[in-house]
Amino acid sequence: MKKLINAPEDVVDEALQGLGAAHADLVRIDLAQHLVLRRDAPRPGKVGLVSGGGSGHEPLHGGFVGPGMLDAACAGAVFTAPVPDQVLAATRAVDGGAGVLHIVKNYSGDIMNFEMAAELAAADGVEVVSVVTNDDVAVEDSLYTTGRRGVGVTVLVEKIAGARAEEGAPLQDVAGIARRVNENGRSMGMALTSCTVPAAGRPTFTLDEDEMAIGIGIHGEPGRRREKLKRAREIAEMLATPVLSDLPFKAGDRVLAFVNGMGGTPLIELYLMYAQFDALLRAHGLVIARSLVGNYVTSLEMAGCSLTLLRLDDEMLRLWDAPVRTPALRW
Amino acid sequence: MKKLINAPEDVVDEALQGLGAAHADLVRIDLAQHLVLRRDAPRPGKVGLVSGGGSGHEPLHGGFVGPGMLDAACAGAVFTAPVPDQVLAATRAVDGGAGVLHIVKNYSGDIMNFEMAAELAAADGVEVVSVVTNDDVAVEDSLYTTGRRGVGVTVLVEKIAGARAEEGAPLQDVAGIARRVNENGRSMGMALTSCTVPAAGRPTFTLDEDEMAIGIGIHGEPGRRREKLKRAREIAEMLATPVLSDLPFKAGDRVLAFVNGMGGTPLIELYLMYAQFDALLRAHGLVIARSLVGNYVTSLEMAGCSLTLLRLDDEMLRLWDAPVRTPALRW
Repeated sequence: MKKLINAPEDVVDEALQGLGAAHADLVRIDLAQHLVLRRDAPRPGKVGLVSGGGSGHEPLHGGFVGPGMLDAACAGAVFTAPVPDQVLAATRAVDGGAGVLHIVKNYSGDIMNFEMAAELAAADGVEVVSVVTNDDVAVEDSLYTTGRRGVGVTVLVEKIAGARAEEGAPLQDVAGIARRVNENGRSMGMALTSCTVPAAGRPTFTLDEDEMAIGIGIHGEPGRRREKLKRAREIAEMLATPVLSDLPFKAGDRVLAFVNGMGGTPLIELYLMYAQFDALLRAHGLVIARSLVGNYVTSLEMAGCSLTLLRLDDEMLRLWDAPVRTPALRW
Repeated sequence: MKKLINAPEDVVDEALQGLGAAHADLVRIDLAQHLVLRRDAPRPGKVGLVSGGGSGHEPLHGGFVGPGMLDAACAGAVFTAPVPDQVLAATRAVDGGAGVLHIVKNYSGDIMNFEMAAELAAADGVEVVSVVTNDDVAVEDSLYTTGRRGVGVTVLVEKIAGARAEEGAPLQDVAGIARRVNENGRSMGMALTSCTVPAAGRPTFTLDEDEMAIGIGIHGEPGRRREKLKRAREIAEMLATPVLSDLPFKAGDRVLAFVNGMGGTPLIELYLMYAQFDALLRAHGLVIARSLVGNYVTSLEMAGCSLTLLRLDDEMLRLWDAPVRTPALRW
């Protein structure tokens, strides 16, 4: 296992320390609970946004904490849901009296632990609403999931709902737009290589030198199929076709096109893939109003990419464009 | 070779198309010349900033084109200097009457081709000043270089000189601060794995499963030595010690600490490395005034990282903080 680490058991702790040290102007770290908190949390009168999940998907979620996006992120162990205590601590820390929104990717452990934390917070008198993301069209049910997995759309939910909360909207409105983004977003991913969980020390799965995995999950869980490595153009079509037909996206729809890297894929390949998707989506009659290209929802050092499409309405567009100041997204 | 590409000969072309399509609000692409141009270039009365180099280092340089940074980037073939014609075309395209600054990484091919272009532009009546970056302390002379290689500091030069040009400063001032940034910056890098140039189809070099390369160049050219893989803490020390002693950096110096990924290293490891560097630099008495963490000067999918330290003065700090709006850096 070739990684820039000291010891597998210290990876999350030390990465959080680094994030906190590098971005002390934006976030503070609760090292005991493994939380990334907006520096000025709680904001009185503002709905608090809490997300989280297993580590290993950076910048998701800690890199999205800051004005205009999340108030707190709970970092679980690598590829392991945060425990209820963490989520409860985050919920309390960001409650400014206007309630707290939990944004939860659809994995059984995450769902269970966020639910438990929401109940405990409610018993404390904190109003909590939860929105679950489940945008991955690859498979119905999966290794860690009942129903569809939550993947790339989570970033878009966090950005857009975060902007709405920043405007001072009430909890039901913030939750409403978060749900609308999830409902209008679809994703699918693929991998060229596996990743290695530090504590495991060996690759999660293996692919031959001429193989790829289509419909892969962000923890390396199996997707639709393995097949021979294809050209970028064909890979783009394998991802875009099921995404387009699922919502379905129709000619004239305005979309945000998000081409995400799995962590080990260099930007030159992600932009090359963006060019393939751009051609396919235009041929389908879509109007690409906004784009995002980069490594945002990663699987450690896995090589591969995913496509997320979001059908935009005017409100989403306005909120996407609103200022944001986090370690990983800033404008 | 596992890459998201169509054909090796189309990689640069298609990646540029993707960059242009994803960021049409900021840049336009000259596909014939492989240039990334600021959308509103030339800006009358503003000094034009041109950089460039081999492709495969994305987001360097095309990802840094936009208000507050570069006016044009010339993309060579992968790991190959742009030709004089490209640089000349870029220089002409961004000349707004106030002259053009060439920012050139110290590699023999780049130096030669930028020089030739500068002479041709001068014959056209365009005033050109060149600044060469040579911040890599690893080796004196290298496979493609006489003297030291230009690496991470190039990003900082482009940002800070770009901000000065945006303020309307004359060419000599913009060149002056660019040189000052280079003179006050030092870098050193390491690799866990090689990269594979698409046209070559095989890894540039090989490292055993328990080996790393210290002082590696951004094209995989040999550095100081290979040795057994160490812990992050020890690797950080191997990079920081020669960087600190070279300028030298002294207790009380304000610095920008830039932890750069080589392309295949996930953010969780870069933040973990940042925590190691942060501790070392503070122990050395440095004041870390600003930081940058991410994959900014890459070597295709190479895994590894580099440290760049820049000793800041008030002007550099002000210009670093100035607004920037490019595909890869934005605030």
